[in-house]
Amino acid sequence: MGLKVAVVGATGVVGSKMLSILEERNFPADEVKALASSKSAGKKLLYKGKEIVVELARPEAFEGVNIALFSAGGELSKELAPEAAKRGCVVIDNSSAWRMDPEVPLVVPEVNENDIFKNKGIIANPNCSTAQLVLVLWPLHKKYGLKRVVVSTYQAVSGAGKKGIDDLNNQVDAIVNGKEIVCEKFPYQIAFNCIPHIDVFKENGYTKEEMKVIEESRKIMHIDDLAITCTAVRVPVLNSHSESVNVELEKEFDLDEVKDLLSKSPGVALYDDFTKNIYPMPIITTNKDETFVGRIRRDFSVKNGLNLWVVSDNLRKGAALNAVQIAESLINKK
Amino acid sequence: MGLKVAVVGATGVVGSKMLSILEERNFPADEVKALASSKSAGKKLLYKGKEIVVELARPEAFEGVNIALFSAGGELSKELAPEAAKRGCVVIDNSSAWRMDPEVPLVVPEVNENDIFKNKGIIANPNCSTAQLVLVLWPLHKKYGLKRVVVSTYQAVSGAGKKGIDDLNNQVDAIVNGKEIVCEKFPYQIAFNCIPHIDVFKENGYTKEEMKVIEESRKIMHIDDLAITCTAVRVPVLNSHSESVNVELEKEFDLDEVKDLLSKSPGVALYDDFTKNIYPMPIITTNKDETFVGRIRRDFSVKNGLNLWVVSDNLRKGAALNAVQIAESLINKK
Repeated sequence: MGLKVAVVGATGVVGSKMLSILEERNFPADEVKALASSKSAGKKLLYKGKEIVVELARPEAFEGVNIALFSAGGELSKELAPEAAKRGCVVIDNSSAWRMDPEVPLVVPEVNENDIFKNKGIIANPNCSTAQLVLVLWPLHKKYGLKRVVVSTYQAVSGAGKKGIDDLNNQVDAIVNGKEIVCEKFPYQIAFNCIPHIDVFKENGYTKEEMKVIEESRKIMHIDDLAITCTAVRVPVLNSHSESVNVELEKEFDLDEVKDLLSKSPGVALYDDFTKNIYPMPIITTNKDETFVGRIRRDFSVKNGLNLWVVSDNLRKGAALNAVQIAESLINKK
Repeated sequence: MGLKVAVVGATGVVGSKMLSILEERNFPADEVKALASSKSAGKKLLYKGKEIVVELARPEAFEGVNIALFSAGGELSKELAPEAAKRGCVVIDNSSAWRMDPEVPLVVPEVNENDIFKNKGIIANPNCSTAQLVLVLWPLHKKYGLKRVVVSTYQAVSGAGKKGIDDLNNQVDAIVNGKEIVCEKFPYQIAFNCIPHIDVFKENGYTKEEMKVIEESRKIMHIDDLAITCTAVRVPVLNSHSESVNVELEKEFDLDEVKDLLSKSPGVALYDDFTKNIYPMPIITTNKDETFVGRIRRDFSVKNGLNLWVVSDNLRKGAALNAVQIAESLINKK
């Protein structure tokens, strides 16, 4: 029996990235199906040079499918992921719908690959800002112990999907050409602006995005009481999220040892030489698989303090790549 | 005898803002002189509807001048500020040349106005990111005591002067029109990018900008051992710096009390209602005198922890306005 993979939300920004990453990594699928809502069903996509027609995402579409990569929003995911799982399909879901469900593993393979195999049909892919963060925090935790983490994010518009990208491009175009600025996706103009508001606000004054970083980091690393806080900010960058990360470690560290550790950590690329102006930036990390870390320096304001600057392609490690890596773990185990 | 004021570097981004702020605040000068390097001497500027010719900035130009606002770079300032002071002029200098000199007061009037009157002819205006930060930190310190501060900045290109503004505008124009991207001022493309590198790198891996925030905050607030760290980042915003500020306070606080305190603090505007999407952003603060603070919420990762989002027009409070306020204090005291 051949391996059958479905991508749900295949015409979206993350879904199409899932398809291209399956293709570029030569994922050993015998068949790849593209599914989407009625709005996109019937569209044609290319996979390995072959045309595939987008089918309507509905329960029956998962018959015979082994692995389904979902990136079609929380609503569709809540409805269809259990239907797919019921039909023997393992769902890897990129929405936030299942992430905090105690029955659902939330996985970054470099950190908690083993959780994948505890799945009951649904595995959750973390929030983009969380994935790149834990890649860097996890090796630090294993060696030195995390005492406290303070994160400020600089997030690209592609994290808000096609409408987010369109907002920035259209607004920049409007400003350059003296036309009226229109906001379709974001609550305010994002061109030439910073918006400290991603996803909806919770009652405690944090945004859902900030709470995702806090709660998902704890769940992935299995540190239930991790002291961590976050301020999440949208910036006028098309792709790749940046994070200013301040860490207090339990144990003493040597700075060169930290750099050496991170340079050898899976999924992480050390990019750090201030004497040569080498530090991560969105223009460098976009279309790269690795999460880049630089500006590594001691924070003298606290015992065992460390400052880092972490940048990663939010559509790859922050979404599509991580989902495909989970799928790879699944089939390698089989 | 009339009050004679000179603006040195009058044709630059900050210098021209100094002139317009003197004018809009109806500063009681009987004469305003515009000075600049040989490159700009001879140019004509408007002040209160009257044409003034830019004169060459040289020692003799300060004869009879009571107050000189300098924004002409560190080199010219080092050379000419002592010459002006020698001639009985009080220099208010916006460069970093004199800020950490123990003989030179470094002043944000809302915080340490009294230091102005200890001057020996030169008063330093702080770095843009520092001015807006201490406006918010100072009332918190007085009431609760600052234990530790972690700052991540989102800094506009106008902080790098006209060439910085030109870089962003030209690069955006190049990208929109499919032309080659040229970097004149910044080490890398700033359009659609974040650059974690402002000013030069120091041996400890911090940038000079980051060390300014650390050292100047301590000096202005007279807290020599303040535990504070900073990551300074340039973002593709034309004007107004944003800061994600994480604070640990010594004493317990009530969140509403903190908001009330900040709403009553001089120079600070509380702009904080997440239920109505009210939070500071560069598009809101530009051309405003106040430093805006919002996203005020408890940081649950530490005892007495607080997160804030602070945005201010870096050319106004971060530069020209603060200098003019110092001048106002000087003449009000007289």
